[in-house]
Amino acid sequence: MNANEIRVFCPATIANVSCGFDVLGLALDAVGDEMVVRKTTQKGIRITKLTGQDLPTETLQNVAGVAGLALLAQSNYDGGFDIEIYKKIKAGSGIGSSAASSTGAVWAMNALLGNPFSPLELVKFAMEGERLASGVAHADNVAPALFGGFTLVRSYNPLDVIKINTPKELYATVIHPQIEVKTSDSRRILKTTISLEDGIKQWGNVGGLIAGLFTEDYDLIGRSLEDHIIEPIRSILIPGFDTVKQKALESGALGCGISGSGPSVFALSKGIETAKNVAKAMSDVYDKIGIDYDIHVSKVNTEGIKIL
Amino acid sequence: MNANEIRVFCPATIANVSCGFDVLGLALDAVGDEMVVRKTTQKGIRITKLTGQDLPTETLQNVAGVAGLALLAQSNYDGGFDIEIYKKIKAGSGIGSSAASSTGAVWAMNALLGNPFSPLELVKFAMEGERLASGVAHADNVAPALFGGFTLVRSYNPLDVIKINTPKELYATVIHPQIEVKTSDSRRILKTTISLEDGIKQWGNVGGLIAGLFTEDYDLIGRSLEDHIIEPIRSILIPGFDTVKQKALESGALGCGISGSGPSVFALSKGIETAKNVAKAMSDVYDKIGIDYDIHVSKVNTEGIKIL
Repeated sequence: MNANEIRVFCPATIANVSCGFDVLGLALDAVGDEMVVRKTTQKGIRITKLTGQDLPTETLQNVAGVAGLALLAQSNYDGGFDIEIYKKIKAGSGIGSSAASSTGAVWAMNALLGNPFSPLELVKFAMEGERLASGVAHADNVAPALFGGFTLVRSYNPLDVIKINTPKELYATVIHPQIEVKTSDSRRILKTTISLEDGIKQWGNVGGLIAGLFTEDYDLIGRSLEDHIIEPIRSILIPGFDTVKQKALESGALGCGISGSGPSVFALSKGIETAKNVAKAMSDVYDKIGIDYDIHVSKVNTEGIKIL
Repeated sequence: MNANEIRVFCPATIANVSCGFDVLGLALDAVGDEMVVRKTTQKGIRITKLTGQDLPTETLQNVAGVAGLALLAQSNYDGGFDIEIYKKIKAGSGIGSSAASSTGAVWAMNALLGNPFSPLELVKFAMEGERLASGVAHADNVAPALFGGFTLVRSYNPLDVIKINTPKELYATVIHPQIEVKTSDSRRILKTTISLEDGIKQWGNVGGLIAGLFTEDYDLIGRSLEDHIIEPIRSILIPGFDTVKQKALESGALGCGISGSGPSVFALSKGIETAKNVAKAMSDVYDKIGIDYDIHVSKVNTEGIKIL
């Protein structure tokens, strides 16, 4: 590797994994952006190229720029960075487009500086990008992008990120119907209180899901992929959600839910064959409704960001 | 073993383990009742002896009787059982006194019948005893008594109990101040709604605790032993709770909380020496306040009920 420049793969991520609203995310393998980050003698951060999506390239308007500045502010490096972003993840799709850019920037910068910052510190820098993108500095996309696999954000204050075991045969199917759901809107419709009864169900399922991931008990993972709190509300914003979910489960998916704040819908399956069958079943629903979509089948990515 | 009679140890249990309200419990090793259960040609269940506590011996008024009848109703055995109960766990102490009796009865009966019922079925029978004791058929004491170690009640409908790994050096300290807190009262003071924000903290901690138990990460277990929802309300009913908790943590406990619905307070520690120091610190608080107490230090029991 050239010590002054690296090219990295920045994975798409699924946040709000069913019962794990705001705490549980996972990284994908087959979907992600590429970025080239280059050390410069000129101070500051510049987005010198951005392809694939129509997004701002002004440093303070770009999530990679903002996250990068957060890192620079804590660093004693007196130069700067140029960043090229090759977007393959669509902005607003609900699979961590902004998180890919902000984590890719800080991960690559850290690597070029000789890794002075811990992964947890990188999560904090990248969260500043999330704050720009959605108004909330959430961590459940940036954590899996940086750590790989399933990650649990146990606590925000202090920030505590736990890497969770990823069973080897776990595949994700993600369908992105081409409708727009803004993160800020999908946050706004949530109620600020929940019933204690639903809360108990939710933390029972989070416990079951974490246990299932560690013991690689696919059936337990499936039983635990339930969300009694967020999904009933947010799914209203996603046309055909109930049918997509039903067809995914009928095709053998362990579970199915909203990716991030939508509109993408994800399913988890044991084995790639089932994940492909699930993709077919989900696609059929939007074919019938007549909504365009992107569909992805991917192994869960256990490495996170990597050098290309 | 005599095929018609067995003597069993029925462990005390800690339910509502901090963040795991209504779902997470654990079994103790050093505290528990003994029971003798004997097959009889006479149909039905009789409590022929009950020592150590002043509790009803009428079958329908006794949790072991009610749980036993629930098992008999599903069995094709045409005889009955005599039950002797030697209580060492104080009723109303918050460490699963009723669960010890109801699980001991059904576990021993099942063993004498050649184990026709699964552990999960035994949980269901024993829950009928809990319904008699507290008005609610909760499972978070009976599950650890039957399965041993830490157990997660992922779901009540359908009932789904998951055995969680128990780190080898995990010890519990339990102090029982001699005041009365009725389970029904301590349920009644809980609010029926919670904030989504507190819910997220709670399921983040449940996830962290389960991860910590599987990876035997004592520090993570300690960070996750938080309860933002139930403890702030119920601790009001326990004199000196805040001081007991503070002293336990200062003495090296990983975490500290209310056992069941109280009034017992538990702490978890790594290693028996720390657990003993914690016991001393907790005892000092009630010595100063002038409230009598029982104190127990115990390894977490990974076997559950066992034949003596």
